[in-house]
Amino acid sequence: VAGLASVNAEVRLVCRTAEQATALSAERIDRRYLPGVRLPDNVRLTHLGDSDALLGCALVALAIPSKARGPISEWLAPRLDAGAGVLSLTKGLDPNTGQRLGQAWMELLGPDHPLCVLTGPNHAEEVAAGQPTAAVVAGDPGLGERVQTLLNSSRFRVYWNDDLVGVELAAAAKNVVAVAAGMSDGLGLGDNAKASLITRGLAEMTRLGEACGGRAATFRGLAGMGDLVATCTSRHSRNRRAGELIAQGTPAAEVEERLGQVVEGLVTVRNLLGLAADHGVELPISTEVARAAFEGRPVDECVASLMMRVPAAEN
Amino acid sequence: VAGLASVNAEVRLVCRTAEQATALSAERIDRRYLPGVRLPDNVRLTHLGDSDALLGCALVALAIPSKARGPISEWLAPRLDAGAGVLSLTKGLDPNTGQRLGQAWMELLGPDHPLCVLTGPNHAEEVAAGQPTAAVVAGDPGLGERVQTLLNSSRFRVYWNDDLVGVELAAAAKNVVAVAAGMSDGLGLGDNAKASLITRGLAEMTRLGEACGGRAATFRGLAGMGDLVATCTSRHSRNRRAGELIAQGTPAAEVEERLGQVVEGLVTVRNLLGLAADHGVELPISTEVARAAFEGRPVDECVASLMMRVPAAEN
Repeated sequence: VAGLASVNAEVRLVCRTAEQATALSAERIDRRYLPGVRLPDNVRLTHLGDSDALLGCALVALAIPSKARGPISEWLAPRLDAGAGVLSLTKGLDPNTGQRLGQAWMELLGPDHPLCVLTGPNHAEEVAAGQPTAAVVAGDPGLGERVQTLLNSSRFRVYWNDDLVGVELAAAAKNVVAVAAGMSDGLGLGDNAKASLITRGLAEMTRLGEACGGRAATFRGLAGMGDLVATCTSRHSRNRRAGELIAQGTPAAEVEERLGQVVEGLVTVRNLLGLAADHGVELPISTEVARAAFEGRPVDECVASLMMRVPAAEN
Repeated sequence: VAGLASVNAEVRLVCRTAEQATALSAERIDRRYLPGVRLPDNVRLTHLGDSDALLGCALVALAIPSKARGPISEWLAPRLDAGAGVLSLTKGLDPNTGQRLGQAWMELLGPDHPLCVLTGPNHAEEVAAGQPTAAVVAGDPGLGERVQTLLNSSRFRVYWNDDLVGVELAAAAKNVVAVAAGMSDGLGLGDNAKASLITRGLAEMTRLGEACGGRAATFRGLAGMGDLVATCTSRHSRNRRAGELIAQGTPAAEVEERLGQVVEGLVTVRNLLGLAADHGVELPISTEVARAAFEGRPVDECVASLMMRVPAAEN
């Protein structure tokens, strides 16, 4: 939002409730998620109860958890201006159908609304603090160009990628690998072990992506390796942190409450394994994450079984 | 050494001087480099002045800085038992000739002495502490199998890779990228920026490796991406730390003294750029590391010029 506001005349932020919008209008600081950042003056606060919330908006960015897609869909579709573009920022799969989120939005909104997804190594805490980063946009080429024009700055570089399938699957799958990396951290296994896990994680993400029609080059780039490395090594990553908590004994069902944030890696892992099974691809790391999180297998056993496995990346 | 000693009857550690060997024999702890680790009882200490230092040794592991290759070569060649294997642990290029170190040892020692290199994400502090990791061995297949048998354990998994060129170039080049990652850390640019840098670093390492006859798969594996990620993100990495110091104002010429350790990334970068020029490959990150370290270009300018560059990994 701050990035958009710095290069555009007017930006609207649609909160869930009128109370949230009022509180944020007054203080202009989100004390819960980004306590150090003041919302620029040209950000206007509104909420889901405002039926004109999107009136006159040429571009609508969706920064919602994957679980909220259903309710937001019903709200969004009738409120979009004719021809308005949609930019999806969520990294995950639809929890109900297992579809890629971009794909799901496209089916819902139809060809009148061009759609793009934005991804890459973009921890919000750092972007908001003005630290430099690079992002990837994929989807509708015309909208992609507009998104680049709207968002590009010397501190936030947006690159175009025409592989929407690869970009979306990389974003969804890397959160699951980050949970595994957090488990390794939680067990105190060190940087060597975590680097091995990240390496095999990218191999497994790439296998799935290629089987689904994505390109290996996407996984070697910012949307794949870049985002994976940032998520697995940063203290800002809630998916990494979730794995750490699980390894230290917090039940998976309590992790989101404990963190106060949605953990897309845990929401996504079972649908990701379903997608992999449909395409005959094995995802050893994601399999162990699901076992540790939902089947009660001890985390140290899960991680040990990964460490003992011959890595497919070697010959 | 500790790893070898845990699975083998006798291991000899050849120190540089008799004084070092005597001190280490008495205390059995290397207070300077690995203060937390006691040498096992079956490690016998000796030194370069002992003309029988290598007598009866079937395998000689070389853990020396690349700069010491010249003097050690003269010492080593006449002392090796007939048929003794050599395992090179140094990640760099020969500072005088720019050759890969394994290649240089093979030319020196000839076909009577099978040679392998061992690499991967293997920070000594963690290996010595018994934290799990994986390594890659490449070179002579028969010796590689012996090395696997000698070193493999549940905590240290050794995988074979038949791409010696790729394995050696990955090891040399990743140290240079780690210096750049440290510069990014030193400037306080955050995890997003560093992840982008690591991503482009792997792309540049891979381009060079393939141009020299190595395989892209090697760079996607433990010897490439695995070691790169570990080196760029670990507090144990002296190459990363060197970049951090340079960004904070320490002259490159003083970094090794300040760290008390050799920084192979700084020793290697100019030869690496020479090799790349011979093969018509551009290495933007290594180029900026050389400029910052040896040509007095301000580090923030070097890193900014990398961040502004269109990444080759995207399309």
